Amino acid sequence: MMPSSPPTWTDGLPDENLPPPAGPAAKPVRRRRARTVGDSESSRTRLLAAAKEEFSRFGLMGARVDLIARRADVNKQLIYYHFGDKDGLYAAVLEEIYRDIRLRERELDLGALKPEEAMRRLVEFTFDYVAANPAFVALLTDENVHGGVHLQNSQVLADLRSPFVGMIAETLARGAEKGVFRPGVDPAQFYISLAGMSFFYFTNIHTLSALFAKDLRAPAALKRRRTHILDIIMASLRP
Amino acid sequence: MMPSSPPTWTDGLPDENLPPPAGPAAKPVRRRRARTVGDSESSRTRLLAAAKEEFSRFGLMGARVDLIARRADVNKQLIYYHFGDKDGLYAAVLEEIYRDIRLRERELDLGALKPEEAMRRLVEFTFDYVAANPAFVALLTDENVHGGVHLQNSQVLADLRSPFVGMIAETLARGAEKGVFRPGVDPAQFYISLAGMSFFYFTNIHTLSALFAKDLRAPAALKRRRTHILDIIMASLRP
Repeated sequence: MMPSSPPTWTDGLPDENLPPPAGPAAKPVRRRRARTVGDSESSRTRLLAAAKEEFSRFGLMGARVDLIARRADVNKQLIYYHFGDKDGLYAAVLEEIYRDIRLRERELDLGALKPEEAMRRLVEFTFDYVAANPAFVALLTDENVHGGVHLQNSQVLADLRSPFVGMIAETLARGAEKGVFRPGVDPAQFYISLAGMSFFYFTNIHTLSALFAKDLRAPAALKRRRTHILDIIMASLRP
Repeated sequence: MMPSSPPTWTDGLPDENLPPPAGPAAKPVRRRRARTVGDSESSRTRLLAAAKEEFSRFGLMGARVDLIARRADVNKQLIYYHFGDKDGLYAAVLEEIYRDIRLRERELDLGALKPEEAMRRLVEFTFDYVAANPAFVALLTDENVHGGVHLQNSQVLADLRSPFVGMIAETLARGAEKGVFRPGVDPAQFYISLAGMSFFYFTNIHTLSALFAKDLRAPAALKRRRTHILDIIMASLRP
């Protein structure tokens, strides 16, 4: 999802597994711009959006490259031109979703806030992001089924890593220095706990609803969950 | 998994998707006992074990009833006799895995321990159980893909609920009374957090390993994770 270049991943995409209706007015425009850098970028962006939708619904194995091309309204050959093959396209989608969440985290500007306020904002953001992006959750789940191989040598992930871990480490360290957080909390472990409390709630929402005989999808339940995660995380950081 | 009736779910099951080799020595014994209550129980147990293995590897959709019957070394008709249909067998497997974890939790005998010690034991047990039972994690994940429909009206789950929630609520309440835990922690929310910190680590272990450039499957990493969860949970409960 690239906020600077609409349409977003999901806006305007039809619910059915069908290509978007190609209006006769739109076609000449695309033809006039064929073979320009802008058009190549645009087809790449449309392919990533269509692929994100298709992969998140059907997984790497179930997704069909020809349907992605039709949904993006581009020639199937462009997939091979831009991404090499189906796995390359899938890897690019995964890198794109990581880039998006990391970009949005950076926009929280945690360094400008007091440590406790910064941490609260990160916790709330993480819950809200997971809640609002089921495709994000589905794609990560699917990639784990495939052993994480598409991200193993990702340069994009490598470039994102240090600022991401640094952001959490710095917030924890600032809090420890000020005496508002206990010292010695490992940033990676801490993030896995923080993210896990949100992810698990959504990935297992049906079995958890059955287990506790409560509809955990209800708006009031979501609100309670968000408050609880904030409570437990902030309580766990007290010195 | 029923500890009182070996074989367990996984013991002796072959890794390949093949029926177990039927040794010529074993067959006459089963034939002699045909149509007895004991044999019916035994075929049901073998079917559940085979189904757990098959469903956890291939999901509800990918699993094949005929392979389950072959793996259990029983006639396919017995599946319909015992469980009605494939979905009934799947529901029975899910109920069985819930029964198992709840039974083992009860064996922790938390009520006999001081609240802090009881909580520590529950946290460690939950991590160890999730770590040691990938089939448990895979089956719950798969059931959530199917909207949790197989558990919605489960009497087994209903019967397990109250003792399970009671166990957590009582431990939290005893700690709050003694002044070692903060009061007002919701047992269901708390359990979702506790379980989520372990589940998410294992369901997303490949992408998390790529994200942090660490092999989270390494024994030392598992040990660190277990210690971290214990730390964060106990810290979050301090008054």
